[in-house]
Parts: sequence; structure tokens; C-alpha cells
Amino acid sequence: MTTDPKPLLRALHGTAGAPPPIWLMRQAGRYLPEYREIRARGRDFLDVCLTPDLAVEITLQPIRRFGLDGAILFSDILIVPHALGQKVWFEDGVGPKLEPLRRIEDLKQLSLGGLDEALAPVYETLRRLSGELPRETTLIGFAGAPWTVASYMIEGGSSKDYATAKTWAYGAPKEFDRIIALLVEATSRYLIAQIAAGAEALQIFDSWAGVWPEAALRRWCLAPAQEIVRRVKAAHPTIPLILFPRGVGPMYQAFAEECGADALSLDTTVPLAWARDHLQGKVAVQGNLDPLVLVAGGATQAEATATVLDALGSGPFVFNLGHGITPQASPDNVAALVEQVRAWRPKG
Amino acid sequence: MTTDPKPLLRALHGTAGAPPPIWLMRQAGRYLPEYREIRARGRDFLDVCLTPDLAVEITLQPIRRFGLDGAILFSDILIVPHALGQKVWFEDGVGPKLEPLRRIEDLKQLSLGGLDEALAPVYETLRRLSGELPRETTLIGFAGAPWTVASYMIEGGSSKDYATAKTWAYGAPKEFDRIIALLVEATSRYLIAQIAAGAEALQIFDSWAGVWPEAALRRWCLAPAQEIVRRVKAAHPTIPLILFPRGVGPMYQAFAEECGADALSLDTTVPLAWARDHLQGKVAVQGNLDPLVLVAGGATQAEATATVLDALGSGPFVFNLGHGITPQASPDNVAALVEQVRAWRPKG
Repeated sequence: MTTDPKPLLRALHGTAGAPPPIWLMRQAGRYLPEYREIRARGRDFLDVCLTPDLAVEITLQPIRRFGLDGAILFSDILIVPHALGQKVWFEDGVGPKLEPLRRIEDLKQLSLGGLDEALAPVYETLRRLSGELPRETTLIGFAGAPWTVASYMIEGGSSKDYATAKTWAYGAPKEFDRIIALLVEATSRYLIAQIAAGAEALQIFDSWAGVWPEAALRRWCLAPAQEIVRRVKAAHPTIPLILFPRGVGPMYQAFAEECGADALSLDTTVPLAWARDHLQGKVAVQGNLDPLVLVAGGATQAEATATVLDALGSGPFVFNLGHGITPQASPDNVAALVEQVRAWRPKG
Repeated sequence: MTTDPKPLLRALHGTAGAPPPIWLMRQAGRYLPEYREIRARGRDFLDVCLTPDLAVEITLQPIRRFGLDGAILFSDILIVPHALGQKVWFEDGVGPKLEPLRRIEDLKQLSLGGLDEALAPVYETLRRLSGELPRETTLIGFAGAPWTVASYMIEGGSSKDYATAKTWAYGAPKEFDRIIALLVEATSRYLIAQIAAGAEALQIFDSWAGVWPEAALRRWCLAPAQEIVRRVKAAHPTIPLILFPRGVGPMYQAFAEECGADALSLDTTVPLAWARDHLQGKVAVQGNLDPLVLVAGGATQAEATATVLDALGSGPFVFNLGHGITPQASPDNVAALVEQVRAWRPKG
């Protein structure tokens, strides 16, 4: 794959090269005035995700501005519970809200039957995008990991400590397995269909993985990720997968050895030398600049960026953030970041 | 120190022994009806902390019920900003609120001068407790670590992503150093005075350490911890210190090697075999049962407890939770936990 014209695909397939490719989690977002302009038209967030004209335009905004190596589908991880039949809505300034699952019987109200139809606009968005991107830009599809999506489905929105979802899991682990199994099935189908629609790489976001002890993490995050990767690889063996098990600390090593993904996205807390020594020999790594550095900019940003590049840039590596970019980030700082990454070469 | 009659002190000084000592973070708290009864009298939370009659009684409640090996002072980490002159109050159902620091000039409104007087009731509480505890029970004092306390002082309360505090740190690191330095000074004095008042061991809570990349973590969490430990050890060389840098993942190893504390408290995500192999040979370890397991109870609790004991119980170890106990925990489950820990012996 070293001859692939797309730098992001080369890196995800394990080839090192300077400069590394770069894209940014939540790169199409509120820090961009052109994004805020579209959102200011007042349409519901989920409606925007499901309107190909708008989702295509928003996906392309940061590509036009910064020429990033990856264009990630503009969507949301909660599109899957929506497609399963759960009521999902977004409240301004509050975040996502869902009619929560409370008992295992509530699972009967969800169905895989309507998945394809509900997600058809997403596939349409991907099809259009694959015709519109520059030839060196990789189209990235994505989904939430089962645990992270389940946490929203059970908590009914964001949560501080996931007490309801975790207590359910600890109190009735076999019931919890069923919720996770449904999401493994839905997520695998969704990702496979994204590839059919034009996605060239995939990222699975397990944003709330960092709340479990090892045994539970293996059961409800690592094993489901393995199974999704297995199914996607069985259908499309050459499409690289990136897994983002945010906050799992030393357990990143188990994910590198066992999850089957081509790359791991590293959160901001992962120390760089440790990642190089324990992860990068097994998978490509992606990350992990603190998104708040893009608010500060200046020397702080330049130094933090150089630190990441110097530590990880000589192996298979994708420059990215350790979490999604924040609304307070400055587009000028993002432009400076891209310029610095593009200019980087290994020392010596 | 192997002849110390207090099991918790023996473990913190590096001696292994079965069964390990046990205490629980936030063991005096809302899960106990006798605690809720006192709080229902309607006094302000900070006022309760600063009223020795009440703070002594609340500290003793879990000792009477469960015979734990450590009695941790009932107080709050925000007592330090209060003693420095910042306005701090607690809103029911919301949590702590502070009149936030917004500019470095606001630091002038804070002063070390009133520290001793403001904290005198805490020292009185400790003096009374040291006369009332069973002889095998260790009196534990505590404070918040500078970064964690600073985050509240700047954010004005709890925060989801610490954007204001972190952006300040990244944008004006030398100013941020000054805030941290003030807290190093206040915290060191406070901890030293707690020992003089009867504390036999200390825990420093860096509850929000897990949000920084390595360089910032070293500057604003690890180095300040080193300095506090150094000052406390200079004054009281034999009093053991426990540091809880929650969420720092692989960086726990750097803390074990460099922070100077006698023990590290492990959050729930730290894998047990990794902790045994990389930390326990350097420091005593404490932790790390998921507090939500105490809500579920039953087989889940028994298995999770056995897993922790079997992995870490043969080295210097203190059984504890990975974070504070939650209001939903059942006192019966806590009693069963203590019984199981007391009955544990190494296998083979």
C-alpha cells in the first residue's frame, strides 16, 4: 500500500513518512464561522446530519480551508440509536437527549429493521463526498462504539459518572450484554454500508471507555470492538479502521495487541514515549495534541505540536488531537498547526 | 515500622500483610443514613466541615459501623481556597461554587495570612479525633492537590473539560505557575499543621490530574506534588503520604518513581497486573474497586473484590475504591466488602 496516493491511507496501513498526514476530530464544527452560519439557520442538529446537501457542505468546509488529509463525514454517533427507533434530539446549550432505556424490555422497542432506510441519507452524503474530494484526501466514515452509544441510550444524554448505565451493567451483566450485542450488530452493518457508499477509512469512537476496570473494559469495550473489526474486515479487508478507546490508560496496550484495528487514536493523557515504545510497533497511532492548545496558540501550540511530531512522527502516525476541537479554537491557530505539521521532518 | 500496631501505617510504610488494611474514599458520606440525618439539619456544608462537634461525629460514623483501618478527616478540599479568602459555597444538588479567579491580579485578594485562623477548627477536629479512635485505627488527614484546587478556583466550580483553567495555563503558563505556587505553599502548611494536630497519614487528592498531556502534567501536577511531599517530609519524616493522581494512566509510573509519596492511590481504570508489575515494587498501592460495584453488590461485588485482592494483596497494599463512594451505595454492601477483605489470604 505504500504507493497509495493518499497519505492518510498510507499511514493507516503502517507506512511511516514525513510529513505525517493530519486531520482533526470535530474539524467541521462551531469554531468555523461558515459552520455557525449554516447552524444559525435553525435546523435541528440531527436534521442537518440527515440532509445530504448540508452534511456534504459542512464536511467539505475544513477541507477547503486547511487542505486536511482526511475528510470525516459530518454526522453524530447518536444517529444509530435514532435509526434503531429510539427518540433522540439535541437541545441547544444542553447537548443530546434521548428517551432513555430503563428496563431490558425497552429493547423490544428498538429494531434493526429500519436501519438501512433511516441511515440512507448518510450513505447519500458519503456517495456525494467521494466524488467531490481532492484525490489525495481520504474520506473517513465513523460510528460510536457500543458502550459509548449505550451510555447515552441508558443515561438519556451526557453523564458525569455513568452511574445508571454502569450500575445496570454491574447489576445485570447478561442484560447489558444484550444491549451491547444489538449495538455490535447495528454498528457493524452501519460501517460496512459506509464503505459501500464510499468511505475509505473508518473511526470507531469509544469516547467514554475510560470509566471501567479491566474486566469490564474487556467485556464491554474491547471484545465488542474486536467483533466489529472482524465483521468489517470480513466484508472489506483493505479498509483501515481506527479505534479511539479514550482514557483507557495502560490498557491501550491491550487494545493495540488485541482489538484488530489498524490504528489507535490516543487521548491527550497518553505519554508520547510510552506510546512509541508500547503501541506504535503494533499499530499506527493517531493523536494527541490537547485541543485546548488551539485556543491558546502561539509558542505553547508550536512547542506542544513539535513534541508530538518529534516523538511519534518517525513511525506510522497520523497527526490529530486528543479529543474533538473546541468551539473556542481559533481557525488561524488551526491553519498554523497544519503549516507546522506539513513542514516537519525527522531530526538528524 | 513492621511492628506498628496500625495495619494501615504498616502497609503505607511498605510492609505486605494479609489481610490488607481497608478504608474507603468518602466513607463518611450520603450513603450513610446517620450522615444524612446530620446534613438534614440544614447547615451549610462548609459550616459542617468547620464545626468540630459535627466533623468529629461524621468522621467516626463509618468507623463505628465498619471498623475500617483508616478514619479520614471529614472536610473538603475547597477549605483551602476558603482559608485563602476566596468565596466558596455549596449549592444543594449543584455542588461547590466559588467566586472565580479571572485574572492574575485577582490573586492579590488571596492571602496566606489568615490560613491558620481559618483552618483552626479543622485542627481542633483532628486533635479530638486522635483521642477518640480505636488504637489500631489510623487518622488520615488530606488536602486537594494544587491543580485540582486551582481548577475549582478558576472555573468557579465543577467543570466538564476545565477549558477556562487549562486555557489560562496554556496561554499564560508563568501566571499559572504563580497560582500553583501559592497552593503549594498553602497546602504544605496545611498538611504539616494537620500532622501537628494528630494526623498519622496524609492523602493528597489530584482528582482532575487526568486531563493533561505529559509536559503539563509534570509541570502542574507532578512537580508540585514532589515539592509538597518534600516539605512535609522535611517537617515530619515518618508520616506516610498517599498521592491520588486520578486518571493519569501510564504516567502513574512516573509518579511512582518521582513524586516521593509513600503510596499511590489507583483509579478504577488502572489494570491490576500492570500496577503490580510497574508500581507496587516502588510504592505501596491503594485502590481500586469501582465505587459503583457497591451499588450492584452480590456476585459482581464479590468477584471484583477478589480480583483486586488476588492481584495486589501480596505486596504493600491498602484496599480502597477507585474514586469516592457514591450516595447510591448500600451500607450492607460496604459491610460485606469489609468482611470479604478481612477474610482474604493469599492463595497457595
